[in-house]
Amino acid sequence: MIDPETPLSEVGERALLRHLKARIPAAQGVVIGVGDDAAAIETGAVTLLTTDVLVEGTHFSRDWCPARLLGRKALSINISDVAAMGGLPRQAVVSLCLRPELPFGWVDDLYDGLLERSAELGIGIVGGNLASTSGPIVVDVTMVGLGDRLLRRQGALSGDRVVVIGTLGAAATGLRLLRHGARLAPDGALLTTGVWTESSAGPVTRCLRAQLDPDPPWAFARSLAEQQLPHAAMDLSDGLSGDLAAMCEESQMGAAIKVESLPIDSSVLQLERARGTNAVTLALHGGEDYGLLLAVPADALQGLRDLALMWGVPATEIGEFIDGPPTVSIRSGVTLRPLEAAAYEHFRRVDDGFGPPGA
Amino acid sequence: MIDPETPLSEVGERALLRHLKARIPAAQGVVIGVGDDAAAIETGAVTLLTTDVLVEGTHFSRDWCPARLLGRKALSINISDVAAMGGLPRQAVVSLCLRPELPFGWVDDLYDGLLERSAELGIGIVGGNLASTSGPIVVDVTMVGLGDRLLRRQGALSGDRVVVIGTLGAAATGLRLLRHGARLAPDGALLTTGVWTESSAGPVTRCLRAQLDPDPPWAFARSLAEQQLPHAAMDLSDGLSGDLAAMCEESQMGAAIKVESLPIDSSVLQLERARGTNAVTLALHGGEDYGLLLAVPADALQGLRDLALMWGVPATEIGEFIDGPPTVSIRSGVTLRPLEAAAYEHFRRVDDGFGPPGA
Repeated sequence: MIDPETPLSEVGERALLRHLKARIPAAQGVVIGVGDDAAAIETGAVTLLTTDVLVEGTHFSRDWCPARLLGRKALSINISDVAAMGGLPRQAVVSLCLRPELPFGWVDDLYDGLLERSAELGIGIVGGNLASTSGPIVVDVTMVGLGDRLLRRQGALSGDRVVVIGTLGAAATGLRLLRHGARLAPDGALLTTGVWTESSAGPVTRCLRAQLDPDPPWAFARSLAEQQLPHAAMDLSDGLSGDLAAMCEESQMGAAIKVESLPIDSSVLQLERARGTNAVTLALHGGEDYGLLLAVPADALQGLRDLALMWGVPATEIGEFIDGPPTVSIRSGVTLRPLEAAAYEHFRRVDDGFGPPGA
Repeated sequence: MIDPETPLSEVGERALLRHLKARIPAAQGVVIGVGDDAAAIETGAVTLLTTDVLVEGTHFSRDWCPARLLGRKALSINISDVAAMGGLPRQAVVSLCLRPELPFGWVDDLYDGLLERSAELGIGIVGGNLASTSGPIVVDVTMVGLGDRLLRRQGALSGDRVVVIGTLGAAATGLRLLRHGARLAPDGALLTTGVWTESSAGPVTRCLRAQLDPDPPWAFARSLAEQQLPHAAMDLSDGLSGDLAAMCEESQMGAAIKVESLPIDSSVLQLERARGTNAVTLALHGGEDYGLLLAVPADALQGLRDLALMWGVPATEIGEFIDGPPTVSIRSGVTLRPLEAAAYEHFRRVDDGFGPPGA
């Protein structure tokens, strides 16, 4: 047993590796797991590959992100990408850059989250890397998935409906709540509502969980791919305005959406009433909701609604794809005005108020 | 055209992504490349997966590592892992953590190296991630390889010979040279010998290249796997003492090696004569040579030598695996004394003089 307070500089790379390796369970489809030069996994004809990173100071702060939830989220953001391609997440490698003074217990807690989340979906952790850094912690996950029937970002056609799966704004609101002192415990329970009153505990908890422990609709996405219902699909990570613009770009289509149709998360609306945040702005530009954005032909809408009902995920038609330049417009009655994308962009030094770096 | 001096904060994530995406060529076996939620690649029954990272301040310094060579090395260290499993490197995803003030040209040069190295082996760059950081640059590559006939770290048997493919000590010597002012240009040509005299230009260049632009014997390793010559194999990344100890651990075998048999790189010996460095110490504990360590049954030695000759790689028998605890001993006449592993270990705050963090 290693004392959780022991700094990594005293534990050392090899002992930490040994400890983590012993914690990682065997998984289906893994020929060779952690410990050799590379992992060997069973694969089909087409394999999905994606990578997404969480960087301290950019995507999270140790002040408000319990290590266990960070581990869960590092997997979830990659699950979201595999799911948005219609794939089944299968294996992951985990690359960590850690400061020597970090306590062993922090890394162990991170692995609690990684292993728990991977067990929920039957994902095998098959390898990774440990490296020392003098700067921000980096949790970089690469995920492999089974890809038989794919969902692309391109392929939206004129007349296809713009459909959002899930709700909007809760994750961005969660980040604001964290910045104002609200906190979750490592087990996901509410620790404190921060500057909000206790009566807001319900919506505060929901928004914090959306930010700290997102749950992409991967099983629904899998069904969607099997039935090939949408013409195009992607995950909502950077914010609706930026993500829809990306889909327009890939499909070379315009899109017109109605603000009054946005599926703003009910908790965001409840908190807006209490504190006067702008729910529409958060829903349009806030990122990290990890729902799906779909281009659905009109004759597949009913099938989509039935499927969404079956899986218990909200499906909301917010507009349509139109002929024209690949940009997003807001429809108000018969007039269209351009929507400026204000989704998060890395490297830009702007505090845009929408906060969350789309992972 | 973007001016190479423009900081990333002015370029922005989306423009940088667009630029890099346009530079990445199509590759064989890639169904969907950069730009969707995940890449989709053609795979066989068994796929190899490995990840290795280069962290600024830990693995490299911008002072002495041209961005182009860093890009090459980020691929090469992963090629080494896939090769050491007997696999064929096929695709890679590249995850970068970059500071907003970094000049665009630096990232573009890094991609020069990444694309050049991937073209040399027919590896497809199929995706990645860009994230902002306030700290050290992180270049994290995950590589996928075709794995039909595998080489494992485990499987060494008593009486098997310990064989080193390649030479030892040049990469660690290269790091020392860099610390004393020797430099390579981005194209790999010698810029300056630093504190060494011009007469040492030959060996200095060789050691710098070993450190900055390693060339793992991947084609040889592939033949080795096809013929299933060794009982066990791994790459030499952390240093012989640590790597051989790891193979002993995996195979539950001891190993006894002869110091006088070590294939010390000739340039290391030349520089040792000139400056009095300890070549044996560097060969035993210095890392990053990216050769191979093999356990070869006696009756396969001749076949191995023939294969090495065919591929033009040095193959040197340095000892044998023996029954006993999984540790490494030095054989001197009839006596054995334990070799303490002094290979690089992350998180430990020791300047052990062997320098290079085994990537």
